[in-house]
Amino acid sequence: MENWNIIAEGFSKADVTKHESIFSLGNGAMGMRANFEEDYTGQTLQGSYIGGIYYPDKTKVGWWKNGYPEYFAKVLNAPSWIGLHIRINGQLLDLNTCTEVKHFRRQLNMQEGWYLRSFVAVLPNGEEIQVEVLRLLFMRFDKIGAFRYEITPLTTSANIEIETYLDSGIKNSDANWDELFWNTLEMDTFRNFGYIGAETKKTAFRVGTFMENVLFVDDEEQNITPTVNRTDTHLGLCYQVAVEKDHTFRLEKYGGYQTQMMLGKHYRFFRWLRFFAHRGFEALLKQQKQCWASIWNTSDIVIKGDVKAQQAIRFNIFQLNQTYSGEHAHLNIGPKGFTGEKYGGSTYWDTEAYCLPFYMATKGAEVARNLLLYRYRQLPEAIANAQKLGFTDGAALYPMVTMNGEECHNEWEITFEEIHRNGAIAFAIFNYTRYTADTTYLAEYGCEVLVAIARFWAQRVNFSAEKQKYVLLGVTGPNEYENNVNNNFYTNYLAQWCLRYAAEQVRLLGKEEIPAEEIAQWLHIAQNIYFPYSEHYGIYLQQDGFLDKDLLPATAIPAQQRPINQHWSWDRILRSPYIKQADTLQGFYFFEDHFTKEQLQKHYEFYTPFTVHESSLSPCVHSVLASALGKTDEAYELYLRTSRLDLDDYNKEVHEGLHITSMAGTWLSIVEGFGGMRVKDGELHFCPRLPKHWESLTFKINFRGEIRTIELK
Amino acid sequence: MENWNIIAEGFSKADVTKHESIFSLGNGAMGMRANFEEDYTGQTLQGSYIGGIYYPDKTKVGWWKNGYPEYFAKVLNAPSWIGLHIRINGQLLDLNTCTEVKHFRRQLNMQEGWYLRSFVAVLPNGEEIQVEVLRLLFMRFDKIGAFRYEITPLTTSANIEIETYLDSGIKNSDANWDELFWNTLEMDTFRNFGYIGAETKKTAFRVGTFMENVLFVDDEEQNITPTVNRTDTHLGLCYQVAVEKDHTFRLEKYGGYQTQMMLGKHYRFFRWLRFFAHRGFEALLKQQKQCWASIWNTSDIVIKGDVKAQQAIRFNIFQLNQTYSGEHAHLNIGPKGFTGEKYGGSTYWDTEAYCLPFYMATKGAEVARNLLLYRYRQLPEAIANAQKLGFTDGAALYPMVTMNGEECHNEWEITFEEIHRNGAIAFAIFNYTRYTADTTYLAEYGCEVLVAIARFWAQRVNFSAEKQKYVLLGVTGPNEYENNVNNNFYTNYLAQWCLRYAAEQVRLLGKEEIPAEEIAQWLHIAQNIYFPYSEHYGIYLQQDGFLDKDLLPATAIPAQQRPINQHWSWDRILRSPYIKQADTLQGFYFFEDHFTKEQLQKHYEFYTPFTVHESSLSPCVHSVLASALGKTDEAYELYLRTSRLDLDDYNKEVHEGLHITSMAGTWLSIVEGFGGMRVKDGELHFCPRLPKHWESLTFKINFRGEIRTIELK
Repeated sequence: MENWNIIAEGFSKADVTKHESIFSLGNGAMGMRANFEEDYTGQTLQGSYIGGIYYPDKTKVGWWKNGYPEYFAKVLNAPSWIGLHIRINGQLLDLNTCTEVKHFRRQLNMQEGWYLRSFVAVLPNGEEIQVEVLRLLFMRFDKIGAFRYEITPLTTSANIEIETYLDSGIKNSDANWDELFWNTLEMDTFRNFGYIGAETKKTAFRVGTFMENVLFVDDEEQNITPTVNRTDTHLGLCYQVAVEKDHTFRLEKYGGYQTQMMLGKHYRFFRWLRFFAHRGFEALLKQQKQCWASIWNTSDIVIKGDVKAQQAIRFNIFQLNQTYSGEHAHLNIGPKGFTGEKYGGSTYWDTEAYCLPFYMATKGAEVARNLLLYRYRQLPEAIANAQKLGFTDGAALYPMVTMNGEECHNEWEITFEEIHRNGAIAFAIFNYTRYTADTTYLAEYGCEVLVAIARFWAQRVNFSAEKQKYVLLGVTGPNEYENNVNNNFYTNYLAQWCLRYAAEQVRLLGKEEIPAEEIAQWLHIAQNIYFPYSEHYGIYLQQDGFLDKDLLPATAIPAQQRPINQHWSWDRILRSPYIKQADTLQGFYFFEDHFTKEQLQKHYEFYTPFTVHESSLSPCVHSVLASALGKTDEAYELYLRTSRLDLDDYNKEVHEGLHITSMAGTWLSIVEGFGGMRVKDGELHFCPRLPKHWESLTFKINFRGEIRTIELK
Repeated sequence: MENWNIIAEGFSKADVTKHESIFSLGNGAMGMRANFEEDYTGQTLQGSYIGGIYYPDKTKVGWWKNGYPEYFAKVLNAPSWIGLHIRINGQLLDLNTCTEVKHFRRQLNMQEGWYLRSFVAVLPNGEEIQVEVLRLLFMRFDKIGAFRYEITPLTTSANIEIETYLDSGIKNSDANWDELFWNTLEMDTFRNFGYIGAETKKTAFRVGTFMENVLFVDDEEQNITPTVNRTDTHLGLCYQVAVEKDHTFRLEKYGGYQTQMMLGKHYRFFRWLRFFAHRGFEALLKQQKQCWASIWNTSDIVIKGDVKAQQAIRFNIFQLNQTYSGEHAHLNIGPKGFTGEKYGGSTYWDTEAYCLPFYMATKGAEVARNLLLYRYRQLPEAIANAQKLGFTDGAALYPMVTMNGEECHNEWEITFEEIHRNGAIAFAIFNYTRYTADTTYLAEYGCEVLVAIARFWAQRVNFSAEKQKYVLLGVTGPNEYENNVNNNFYTNYLAQWCLRYAAEQVRLLGKEEIPAEEIAQWLHIAQNIYFPYSEHYGIYLQQDGFLDKDLLPATAIPAQQRPINQHWSWDRILRSPYIKQADTLQGFYFFEDHFTKEQLQKHYEFYTPFTVHESSLSPCVHSVLASALGKTDEAYELYLRTSRLDLDDYNKEVHEGLHITSMAGTWLSIVEGFGGMRVKDGELHFCPRLPKHWESLTFKINFRGEIRTIELK
């Protein structure tokens, strides 16, 4: 295990899809799984994604409910530019059919931003070749990537036939109706350059996919005129090269995407690629290292004395930077980033609840502001979404899952009822303002969002004559192992807070267009909102009736029935006391200073035994709270669980992609947990409580424009 | 409006699918919508169904939950035997493209069991023909049907080209994945006889579809050798006949199905059809009248002084008899019978809760016993279903929707949580025994079912430390406008009753294999089960928290928002107080003698204002209870609503098919409601409370083998 590298050695067909996820590359604008360039007939999940290029896939549902969206917008598997067909003396290179794969090794260099794969293949005829492939997606100019593919025949001289191709005949493996999402419009070649222009169906995003190829033998460039292999959705350039035993053939392939492509205008991109190809792969690699050095300069975390924890946090920071750079205002952070199809690359409340603090502290206020503006720009759709559910007068309900502001999700208990997301979006405005001291966002944009959200809560409550309080019926909290409950503490608390915060900001900013009676009503509701509470335990209940459950701790569940979401029927999960992710405790995390430490301790100790952490977003919150309670060992265990979730594949699902948004939670576990960082009265405060075996913890923070290095021991 | 006939006059393209439902024919073994025999290019829902011939259609679901079934078994649209292509002097007869359709009339004669359609068509070239079609599905020999199709040219002599065909290239319009469900295996013709052998995919039901044709001009049989028109899924016999103006061409077509068909063995069926054809259509019609006379003899209800009510109840009784004859032990009663595809022809709790009393009282104990045995035979699947959800030791959960005992439904809040169905199945055993005095069913079969159901309830409850009572968490009651609630009164009450009834029967029957401790535990749970109750209102609450709702009566809903299930998003419905169908009151209906009349009145008056009756199964229960409370006007209004639901198309959904199971509820509204019939201590009791304008109410009842005529004034 290395501080700066992820290394996997040995070839196992069962691990291919898992490692395709872990060794994914991205540059904030696009990303790709670590698929092999050459043919591979074994199990693989091919994936190459371009931020913002999505398709509204027709909703699939068993039983339609009024209000469901017509489609789920998903970031598409994009045309591929990395493909190679390779024959060595007529033998196809395919690691699935090779006689043996020796010395197989993958390395992700996080410090410098590249991925290396090497192996020796014993071909079916017994000949051996050594292959080494170094790949990167360029950070500085985020439309391109490149790889260097080297082949050295080890047992005999080789006639290498290589076809380097573009492929627009790609599918999404999660397509609801097995449709193809791309139409291929045009293709062209010029010497070693190839181009395919394709368009997404329905959304009509035009994307150009390009390649430029440079061939060498032992560093000597080869001028070979390729033959062209062209089908409706495939454009290949075919070369033949003779290489002596122990000499090295090398292909440098540059490729990438131009979005908003105009038909017939691909020569500009050709010139770009030629420019990079002319300077050469080494020059590109050098620039890549520089980019990553400057990223690490504002975001690195150094843990002395714990290589496992060190490697994990770097992997998390690296992936977060690969996913979102903050440079494109229309992009956001999908739960799997560019590493898989699951969750469709769409935006969830993860962004506001978990990711914002990381980007705010490592990239600065402008990037965080962009994340807030993303929601501001989607306010009209959030209002329309609320209207669809019967709300009026400009009340807004932000979608659970979205690409362009419209709701994409279609499970009633989530789509219509997991409404706490609205609160996280308001909380992010507060959090941003607290951290950055930038009050202009609130004045110019934020307040409008807060008002629309407050209006939603004011309409969503109803007055219970029985309780003489306002109640919130039929909601789903962050703990999705309970559906359609009444008076979820976290939701009610957020609603109360939103109503008060909106009222306060409207008054502070002198927004006279909001009637005083309306504000008075918000405050009246906030004052009289109901919270389920147990006198016996001295705790707020997750929701009405929680204490009626059979309150056995999660340790009572037989090991072979874990995770319960893979073994228990849904009703059994729902009536159990088991909590998928921090729910009541999520409220304590957001509003720590609203409660005493004794309250925190009581709630933490009551809910933890029932929490099964079957959401990747759960252990990080528990870890931060455990740290605050001085339970450092527990915090450390939770930290490892969240930070190495993918590297150690705890949940056996890494093959689907990485858990990107929870990686921001990992960062919180360290900075807010072990580091105890808080912003109070405009000042940073720290309260180090490091795991015993850590010699020191050092991290970089951008606080109000200044990069600070915090070293804690 | 006629006592014995349903008549619709005038041709309206918008009404075609609706009338296809209303004029459906069935004979207990098969049924068909009132599709036109000749071509019709307008909107139509083609449907011909054979009881028990189903296909396991692959489940379609948005988000999979553990425990969902892999398929939904649905009764298939079967190959059609009625089809005709007709050309008059070269003009295709198609009512959608005729210049005019005059004197269009449909008549369903319920007394005699036939359906007549007649019209004058003005063809595109101006020629006019008169058509009259009389159709029946034969009750006595339930594999066949026949129709007599008469054409009289009114304006000129006509060359009639007629192709009479079988079609196995049919689709289900509700196919989840747009698949065809039938494979055509063989076809054959012999003179005027045609045959197609087809097989359902997956389930491999082999069905032979047959036809025999006899042609006449003015009663003179025509011996014409047909030409054969044969494609992969179509077999037609083509004839040409010249008919003078004002003379009548007549086709008598006999057709039907042989299930469990052996390939190449279709000549037996040919001989049957020839036998009927030889005797002639009139003979068949005469026999049909006799069959229906004997059905009416044990089931008719005569209402003097109210033709609207009279016609409605006869329509309901007629359809119930068309749907289920009690002669085939493997069949049951689908909510739409043989009149449409919705609900897949599968069995719901409707059978036990609503239909059993009708069939028991009009067809006798043997038929009712068959309905109970249907569930007994499916006990192993019900146990397997419970195991899938984590239950053990022979606990059974009967499916919500089933064809062969396996669960078909896939909405978690229904499939897993609408568990009260288990109670209705136990109640039916009690109800049967009470009505028939046949205790052998309990001893031989019923007790085994009761024990498995009691075991389910005993495991499904949990002890609430908070309440010091047993609770039932996460259920859905009959009111499906609430999902995943705690302590639904109806469900808890049924659970309590089931546990006690099972314990009692086990003891009475001396079933020593059931441990005494287990029975003691059932009784302990029953004794300590929790019921939500409001001291303030003096009523049991539908579920925990019901009084937290915004308790506005349904009259507060703007008319244009009714029915709410077509206008409100699902979450809004769920948190509203509105009740889809009798829920708490369903319990009062089943266990009337467990409560005082005052209690009934309080509950009826509390829940009625919130009840929107958006289930067809709701008004009948309210009607019976209203009668019991002396609210006869209200009972009458509810009776009309339920009995004329389809005839008057209250819910604008008759085009999908008829509400067959609620028709049994209509019967209950009269017999138990206005007639006040109860069985107490082995005796029939009546308590007439007739609507004021009814002169008398007379009905037939089979009570313990004796047909009694009850006349009430």
